[in-house]
Amino acid sequence: MRASVLRDGRMVYRDDVADPVPGPGQVLVAVRSCGICGSDLHFAAHGSQVLKMTAEAAGAAGAMDVDLSRDIFMGHEFSAEILEAGPDTDTHPAGTMVTSLPILLSAKGFDPMVYSNSTLGGYAERILLSAPLLLPIPNGLDPRHAALTEPMSVGLHAVNKSNIERGETALVIGCGPIGIAIIAALRLRGVESIVAADFSPKRRELATAMGAHQVLDPAQGSPFDSVKARVVFEAVGVPGIIDDVLRRARWGTRLVVAGVCMQPDEVHPFFAIAKEINVQFVLAQTPEEFAESLRALAEGEIDVAPMITGEVGLDGVGAAFDDLADPERHCKILVTP
Amino acid sequence: MRASVLRDGRMVYRDDVADPVPGPGQVLVAVRSCGICGSDLHFAAHGSQVLKMTAEAAGAAGAMDVDLSRDIFMGHEFSAEILEAGPDTDTHPAGTMVTSLPILLSAKGFDPMVYSNSTLGGYAERILLSAPLLLPIPNGLDPRHAALTEPMSVGLHAVNKSNIERGETALVIGCGPIGIAIIAALRLRGVESIVAADFSPKRRELATAMGAHQVLDPAQGSPFDSVKARVVFEAVGVPGIIDDVLRRARWGTRLVVAGVCMQPDEVHPFFAIAKEINVQFVLAQTPEEFAESLRALAEGEIDVAPMITGEVGLDGVGAAFDDLADPERHCKILVTP
Repeated sequence: MRASVLRDGRMVYRDDVADPVPGPGQVLVAVRSCGICGSDLHFAAHGSQVLKMTAEAAGAAGAMDVDLSRDIFMGHEFSAEILEAGPDTDTHPAGTMVTSLPILLSAKGFDPMVYSNSTLGGYAERILLSAPLLLPIPNGLDPRHAALTEPMSVGLHAVNKSNIERGETALVIGCGPIGIAIIAALRLRGVESIVAADFSPKRRELATAMGAHQVLDPAQGSPFDSVKARVVFEAVGVPGIIDDVLRRARWGTRLVVAGVCMQPDEVHPFFAIAKEINVQFVLAQTPEEFAESLRALAEGEIDVAPMITGEVGLDGVGAAFDDLADPERHCKILVTP
Repeated sequence: MRASVLRDGRMVYRDDVADPVPGPGQVLVAVRSCGICGSDLHFAAHGSQVLKMTAEAAGAAGAMDVDLSRDIFMGHEFSAEILEAGPDTDTHPAGTMVTSLPILLSAKGFDPMVYSNSTLGGYAERILLSAPLLLPIPNGLDPRHAALTEPMSVGLHAVNKSNIERGETALVIGCGPIGIAIIAALRLRGVESIVAADFSPKRRELATAMGAHQVLDPAQGSPFDSVKARVVFEAVGVPGIIDDVLRRARWGTRLVVAGVCMQPDEVHPFFAIAKEINVQFVLAQTPEEFAESLRALAEGEIDVAPMITGEVGLDGVGAAFDDLADPERHCKILVTP
């Protein structure tokens, strides 16, 4: 079957990948749509660093067993159609449109469907999913929109961890897909003052479309000069951002770090101490948040249409990875096998 | 009158300081006892750095107006006896033993009694306090113990900000005065598993005396190898400690940073992201926590006697600053004018 795989830092089209065979508790599905995530771009460019950092963070718990010299499957934001259940597996009827947390359960344990030499991800024609994790896509929601359940739930998780209240002002720094998902989740929660900052005019436009009440261009001055935010969401993930927030934020600020900075970073703890800042680092989502995001999409409470800026086939993934580097052109590109 | 002042980085004894005169709302008191705080030692050694960092953290709010080329008054952990109230000022009768948050209210506003060219601190025979902030020392509590209300309330504040529950394991890294105050506050809160780590045998002994259930020597291996702590208190305040916690702590750890690191510090945000760590930076205390600490001392719920390792007169403050560098000899030295 067809798939796009990471090989030597580039996404490569293949038409000779073996079809997966579902085991007990697993379901064979046809991928309908898969979003390209910034973390996939990062892994393609800096895979060895990601593996090293993941191993260090995991400590004795053990690293991810990924061999960069072999082809790697990725793609963790997907919707799919059920084809066939594995042995002794109860699931929805064939033809049901579903999505799922990107985790494959097996007799051996569970594999994250993020970067793997063996477990297929969404950049493939057909993949395996876990029957207990399948969520049928309700209300005839467009499967291309349902594919964005995962990234939207990342934003919902960040907002939930912030414990923000409706009357508190939120500042979202960075309007890439994670920042946009945070904005949508803030709006969903009824937050009445959502300010978004990004250097890109296109992304500021998108932030407005997705629910920001005010957008700022950091090139015109620090957002902290004009916004008194109680909760700050950092969705950039490059060195220096956290320290800038600690330096400029108000007393008692709650900072949620959703941007994934892989490099070492310099901070001045004293800034945070003097202002009693709270820093909540966040990652991924809970199963409940995943389901809640799907519900909000299906009910029309979040409309991801403005985020989708491109669509490619499996043979276009490599070019799409390149194109995503330009924030003026793209937010989210979907892969349609 | 007599006082000890900071001059060119050294504490200097003077007997020619002008007696302060209480204004409206102020009270003249005779200092009975004043604890030497680590922040005073740090300011003596690195005053210009402290002022620079404080100014940067304050931003447009303005810096502390301190001239390092002139004598500086310090001392913010004190007990005192009321001598005389200022004009139109109601207060307790002369002879009442009191303590207070180290803030002097005046017609101009309020001055922190921390480092100042003009507002006296506790390293002096007589000082001014603010009538509305005075707390009488109850139950005949030893004024030397009451002087430690301030540092003990710093520990209580750190514990309160952690939201720790009795059943959660606490790890306290660093058993200087702040770490010890945290241990006492954890014990006061009924936390059932308090683990303390310090390289100094003397400080580990003190940690046990003040309520730690288990003590560890980091020279024998990382505390994280043997303790599964849910809440970690960092009470060291030197570069590298925060990153070490982020690297080694468990998923979901709540880190309370109570050590005051003035230098830039390198961290790996990814460690914190991968484990969704929460970092709460803390400073000082609330008025309620100050009052609660005094109550706990007066009721005998916290006994600070083991912390007091020395006592000097105003002419001995310089030597005491030097002596405090050795953790094997000292925890808290009191100045008795």
